[in-house]
Amino acid sequence: MGSFTTRRRVEFRDTDAAGIAHFSAFFFWMESVEHELLRAAGVAVVDRGADGIDASWPRVSASCDYVSAVRFGDELDVAVSVEAIGRTSVTYAFEFAHDGRSVARGRVVAVRCLMRSGEKPESVAIPADIVRRLDVHRAAS
Amino acid sequence: MGSFTTRRRVEFRDTDAAGIAHFSAFFFWMESVEHELLRAAGVAVVDRGADGIDASWPRVSASCDYVSAVRFGDELDVAVSVEAIGRTSVTYAFEFAHDGRSVARGRVVAVRCLMRSGEKPESVAIPADIVRRLDVHRAAS
Amino acid sequence: MGSFTTRRRVEFRDTDAAGIAHFSAFFFWMESVEHELLRAAGVAVVDRGADGIDASWPRVSASCDYVSAVRFGDELDVAVSVEAIGRTSVTYAFEFAHDGRSVARGRVVAVRCLMRSGEKPESVAIPADIVRRLDVHRAAS
Amino acid sequence: MGSFTTRRRVEFRDTDAAGIAHFSAFFFWMESVEHELLRAAGVAVVDRGADGIDASWPRVSASCDYVSAVRFGDELDVAVSVEAIGRTSVTYAFEFAHDGRSVARGRVVAVRCLMRSGEKPESVAIPADIVRRLDVHRAAS
Repeated sequence: MGSFTTRRRVEFRDTDAAGIAHFSAFFFWMESVEHELLRAAGVAVVDRGADGIDASWPRVSASCDYVSAVRFGDELDVAVSVEAIGRTSVTYAFEFAHDGRSVARGRVVAVRCLMRSGEKPESVAIPADIVRRLDVHRAAS
Repeated sequence: MGSFTTRRRVEFRDTDAAGIAHFSAFFFWMESVEHELLRAAGVAVVDRGADGIDASWPRVSASCDYVSAVRFGDELDVAVSVEAIGRTSVTYAFEFAHDGRSVARGRVVAVRCLMRSGEKPESVAIPADIVRRLDVHRAAS
Repeated sequence: MGSFTTRRRVEFRDTDAAGIAHFSAFFFWMESVEHELLRAAGVAVVDRGADGIDASWPRVSASCDYVSAVRFGDELDVAVSVEAIGRTSVTYAFEFAHDGRSVARGRVVAVRCLMRSGEKPESVAIPADIVRRLDVHRAAS
Repeated sequence: MGSFTTRRRVEFRDTDAAGIAHFSAFFFWMESVEHELLRAAGVAVVDRGADGIDASWPRVSASCDYVSAVRFGDELDVAVSVEAIGRTSVTYAFEFAHDGRSVARGRVVAVRCLMRSGEKPESVAIPADIVRRLDVHRAAS
């Protein structure tokens, strides 16, 4: 099936005094779109176990390359695909476009972790059922 | 003693496409300055009790009036004073100025609450020691 | 016709270490929903005049009262209505609810201004056509 | 001389419902610290030319690797150095630490551009005087 596609609009708070979307906004959109993909795939973003411990997906790296600028009110077509699934991590690749023109490309690596309050996140193997659900959005190779 | 004064600079992320500080930035500054006042007064912003329950200060209302605009790089002189102390709540009043010109005036009401994970915040009486420490920054009447 | 209603979801970036939506997020949602109302009403948020000067809507005041908390992933039903229209200003009133429970109430006063680059915004009368379009979303009295 | 060092504190708005600094906050800190370095080096962040055209530094790429988490109120020691200077671009490398423990490492590539209102940023050669001022903060090789 490949990419999951959705849209985001450049809100006023996303802009800066250069009149364009601030570079940080793309990191918010990547997280928001990743969560939308998870929900659509039937994967809980925060997954409370029978033991009351939440499993979630903190990120270990995030990057973005900026190709062209977008302005207040512009709509962004966002395509996200799962580039790789490791034992504990998922790599997502993002393409942002406006009106058919490339705007930015990003990549995020998220790790499945148990989140115990006040403790360090502890990485754990991604359950097979979740791997199967994410596989649907693998980038075509 | 009255007002507690400090400074904040308009960062690039605080600006918007109108070329000025976004109206939301003042709410961030108010919270940041409230926390700076608390630290200076020796009051923990998040206060873990002997029972492991955190007490903190969620807000029940926040408002801001905008008088004039500031731009990227401008320094803001911020004066905050304690306008009122109730049994469970503190009202803070903020004045923002740049180069002697009034920029904005804000007000925040924060309530002392026990924060149990996943439950509703529960308001509690402000300990007498904290009232004493906050009294130092009472607005002159 | 009265209120304009829409939805917003609490994104992860909107949350804070207390586990709930940060109080500042409501100001972002108010602006975003105000802009959605303007678009739906056929009013340009930024309106370039024949002279190349943009007219827009900087705010002179914003306030919010917080009734109950919302968490990551919660959906918010937002109702906005036009509470008053003055010669140069519009007052919007916002109601936020989750699952039928009241979450917050806010109010914003925006002023029609000419935005000349590097100069102070200059308030101007709201054109009659825009008054008519906003009247549709007047609060029922 | 090498690295320029400064500090940032994790503000409440920088945290998320996982109880730690949100991954996006590091991008704000990188920009803020880059601007602090520029000011310290005597380089205007926004540089208005004799022709009234602003030169500034939009970024073409930004990345961050997350090593360990920080929480509300933690202080971050930030070291930034100039990793490379090209004809039109500067690459900055950032190290974030808390209490001697590594927290994150980031990299930003900014391009010297003329910013004409409503037009695409146009990359231009970095003036020799600015290259000289940035050279002071070159990473030791």
